Amino acid sequence: MSNKQGTVFVVSGPSGTGKGTIMEEYFKRYPHDNTFLSISATTRSPRPSDIEGVTYYFKTKEEFEDLIANDGLAEWAEFCGNYYGTPKKPVNDMVAEGKNVVLEIEVQGGCSVMEKFDNAVGIFVLPPSFTELKNRLVSRNTETIDVIESRLSRAREEIQEIDKYEYILINDDLDKAVETFRSILIGESQRVIRNKNIIKEVCEIC
Amino acid sequence: MSNKQGTVFVVSGPSGTGKGTIMEEYFKRYPHDNTFLSISATTRSPRPSDIEGVTYYFKTKEEFEDLIANDGLAEWAEFCGNYYGTPKKPVNDMVAEGKNVVLEIEVQGGCSVMEKFDNAVGIFVLPPSFTELKNRLVSRNTETIDVIESRLSRAREEIQEIDKYEYILINDDLDKAVETFRSILIGESQRVIRNKNIIKEVCEIC
Repeated sequence: MSNKQGTVFVVSGPSGTGKGTIMEEYFKRYPHDNTFLSISATTRSPRPSDIEGVTYYFKTKEEFEDLIANDGLAEWAEFCGNYYGTPKKPVNDMVAEGKNVVLEIEVQGGCSVMEKFDNAVGIFVLPPSFTELKNRLVSRNTETIDVIESRLSRAREEIQEIDKYEYILINDDLDKAVETFRSILIGESQRVIRNKNIIKEVCEIC
Repeated sequence: MSNKQGTVFVVSGPSGTGKGTIMEEYFKRYPHDNTFLSISATTRSPRPSDIEGVTYYFKTKEEFEDLIANDGLAEWAEFCGNYYGTPKKPVNDMVAEGKNVVLEIEVQGGCSVMEKFDNAVGIFVLPPSFTELKNRLVSRNTETIDVIESRLSRAREEIQEIDKYEYILINDDLDKAVETFRSILIGESQRVIRNKNIIKEVCEIC
């Protein structure tokens, strides 16, 4: 048991806000921050580029259903015939060891996950504006206008959940967003409620 | 009226923890953070090095007592026959303009000030240990052992108030303390509750 517990950070935001890019850049830039990305479990078949325990925990359907039955998942969903979910144990283990864990997850799953971990901190990634979000989705050039409109409509709905999150992170400039994300993590680690042991230790040596 | 209000940060901590040094270094290092140190009012006579509105607001005894009578001070105290206090108006004006204001103040005054400003954020500066605090006070070589013991005893009392503060800042290494202080400021500026206008703006452009 570490002197200081880690913190679970739930990073959500509408599709196209670039939360994945911010996380990727943060972990590349700060590999020694004692902060780790949560690994999802899935029943889909591994691809050649997959690494067990790095890209996913690969499970059989039976194993996954056991996890569901034993309340072993913070959230899960079925998608194209496969299960995807967040196993609680590795997250709780890392937190107990004093590590921060980042869960990058869409808004509905994020709200569910925040209820499952004590003192989890929600960060909601916002586009600079909806016009900009639309431009980003259009410029990907991979989706029809109908799909884009449905994504925007979902984004509008998702933003209604923002009060369940503690922080906003506006992805206007990647560099700034990464540094701001890191400041949120550092700031949270300094909260009085997260440092009872350390405060006690400072005082005990009186 | 700015789109985003600023925040009042109350920085307190026992004598000898180095809160003044951290603030001085922070303002030297980051003069463009839109963050300003609150200026106290006093009835003491200006010294040659004093600059009105920079080191202090200099007031007559009558002016100061008017401020007290009109609830114009967030806190005040009498010391060696002179009044010292924190005028509310300049702090509220800066916050309305979107600036952050830092009040560096001892613990008793800090607790009082936090009640006077909406959403003020308290940061409690701690020594790495009480042994280290004692060493620092001894090595100043300006005070008798009795005075040092009384300071330490007061420090122990002051730390009992730490739950009224949101954050701790351990002054082990000045450079690290300055950067951590800045992260707390940046993190707080991203809180959902402080960004209602910006969230509305992002959504309005749907």
